Amino acid sequence: MPNSLQENTEAMDSIVIIGSSGHAKVIIDIVEQEGRYKIAGLLDLNRKVGEQTLGYQILGRHEDLPQLVTTHALKGAIVAIGDNFVRSKVAVRVKEACPSLLFVSARHPKASIGRDASVGEGTVIMAGATANPCSSIGRFCILNTNSSLDHDSVMGDFSSLGPRAATGGNCRIGSYSAIAIGAVLIHGIHIGEHTVLGAGSTALRNIDSFKVAYGTPAKVVRDRKPGDTYL
Amino acid sequence: MPNSLQENTEAMDSIVIIGSSGHAKVIIDIVEQEGRYKIAGLLDLNRKVGEQTLGYQILGRHEDLPQLVTTHALKGAIVAIGDNFVRSKVAVRVKEACPSLLFVSARHPKASIGRDASVGEGTVIMAGATANPCSSIGRFCILNTNSSLDHDSVMGDFSSLGPRAATGGNCRIGSYSAIAIGAVLIHGIHIGEHTVLGAGSTALRNIDSFKVAYGTPAKVVRDRKPGDTYL
Amino acid sequence: MPNSLQENTEAMDSIVIIGSSGHAKVIIDIVEQEGRYKIAGLLDLNRKVGEQTLGYQILGRHEDLPQLVTTHALKGAIVAIGDNFVRSKVAVRVKEACPSLLFVSARHPKASIGRDASVGEGTVIMAGATANPCSSIGRFCILNTNSSLDHDSVMGDFSSLGPRAATGGNCRIGSYSAIAIGAVLIHGIHIGEHTVLGAGSTALRNIDSFKVAYGTPAKVVRDRKPGDTYL
Repeated sequence: MPNSLQENTEAMDSIVIIGSSGHAKVIIDIVEQEGRYKIAGLLDLNRKVGEQTLGYQILGRHEDLPQLVTTHALKGAIVAIGDNFVRSKVAVRVKEACPSLLFVSARHPKASIGRDASVGEGTVIMAGATANPCSSIGRFCILNTNSSLDHDSVMGDFSSLGPRAATGGNCRIGSYSAIAIGAVLIHGIHIGEHTVLGAGSTALRNIDSFKVAYGTPAKVVRDRKPGDTYL
Repeated sequence: MPNSLQENTEAMDSIVIIGSSGHAKVIIDIVEQEGRYKIAGLLDLNRKVGEQTLGYQILGRHEDLPQLVTTHALKGAIVAIGDNFVRSKVAVRVKEACPSLLFVSARHPKASIGRDASVGEGTVIMAGATANPCSSIGRFCILNTNSSLDHDSVMGDFSSLGPRAATGGNCRIGSYSAIAIGAVLIHGIHIGEHTVLGAGSTALRNIDSFKVAYGTPAKVVRDRKPGDTYL
Repeated sequence: MPNSLQENTEAMDSIVIIGSSGHAKVIIDIVEQEGRYKIAGLLDLNRKVGEQTLGYQILGRHEDLPQLVTTHALKGAIVAIGDNFVRSKVAVRVKEACPSLLFVSARHPKASIGRDASVGEGTVIMAGATANPCSSIGRFCILNTNSSLDHDSVMGDFSSLGPRAATGGNCRIGSYSAIAIGAVLIHGIHIGEHTVLGAGSTALRNIDSFKVAYGTPAKVVRDRKPGDTYL
């Protein structure tokens, strides 16, 4: 058994973490600190059953999932994959294979979620992150370390704020878009879907869908297609 | 009654929030989480009595305030207006109309205020913000989401740090000046009064009063007068 | 006695803080909030015995340390000096003079240290800082206000993250290197030893040892020798 803050894992619902990378380790830590779910183990395409990460075993591959749901009495899952588009494809596959499995969220105890903020299923919120009142965070989003989403801002499904990324109030980030580490959106900025704003950038104007933009002020440097690498 | 963390609002002093924008919603959330004051309602020039924000009613307009102080047994107020100059004008008007009303501060439980740091009346400190030891925060300031004011730094009255803005130690920010979202002052930088440092900027040298500056390193791009829009 | 959160300082081991600057004040605040050690007093080359900082007396100079260890029953020390190279020289001198003295760490209660993250002796972690799971922080490091070190990243001895500096996952920062206030390393970046990355910079590529680099993207602008001033 891994070190954890869980006192009575017997009574908790079991979940599986899909992925076992560094990003998955961050999510495991959050789930343990929250103490809402018991982690039954991990799924990873590229590793052998029985290998371990932070004390949790690789239980199998994606095709084993329906069987594992029964064996481990799995109630939920978190897709612990950092790339937004890859995460969406895996989430769809998992849902198709196991319709009964719920996607759960993970929120670090040292994150701050304001009043009337909503957090969709499958979304993960890291240490030091802040979502202010009346913000709306879609399904399968990432609010990474020390990032902030300010009041009344909206993140579409499968979008992400990188570590320390920050928005002003009333911003919109479209589905699948990634705001990279350290980037900033000033108050009221709208970012389209499938767009990437590069590390350390500052968006002073709206950015369309399917773009890569960076710099301070951020400028569009090229188009991108869904699933293209970020930069 | 709105959802709140307040257990016994009967025993608490009542305050009024002046403003009802997104910024006001952030402040309402903080006041609720602190549980020091009961919010009697909101004032807003542009809305009708009885309209609601986060479950609190618009009680009236500014000219109704003397009457409302009696009706609602108001002890204090917070001016929940993001623009530094507008906030100062409203604060003066409120003080003139109701000299007995105290301006109170609001500090998010997940903010960190260091030892021997001082926080003036009417100042609001958002989630994730840090004010380190021996810093001095004036009256009616804003330390916005995840911002930080480092040791021995001083903020003049009606000045503001935007979301994620950060200073080194021994900095000074003059009255009415705004350090925009994501901007940085290195150790020991002095910013004059009524100056705006733009989003994502990095100030490596002092900046005079009545300037707009931005960039990394920050350069003065034009003069501004008190009350000019920020950028 | 200074104001403190310590309830029973009698039972705690006594430590000495070496340095009495603003940086030392931040560390004093953390040690008090942690409540693990009792601060017996401060050492400072440039001040007179009996002068005070935050209520703690200057006990003497470095050459008095062996005597003070006995007089004050000192068990540990923290070198509260912000410059990485100067801090290393002082740490060596202290260790030579008093081999029995342990260098202790200080971690603000509002910092977040992830699972399986390691923190070396003499390291200080400020309010709002985050070290994610499986990160490794060497000896005598500084994670300053609201900074973040992401999963699996490594900081060498005597290195530092300035206020709000942030790394992606799997980064490496060599010994004695300083990532200045507000700077960013994207995922997987390696920084050599004795290198300085300037304020507000964004490192998109690795940077060698003994360099000064800045800008977004960060470029090497000159060489530096151990002990050179940062910029």
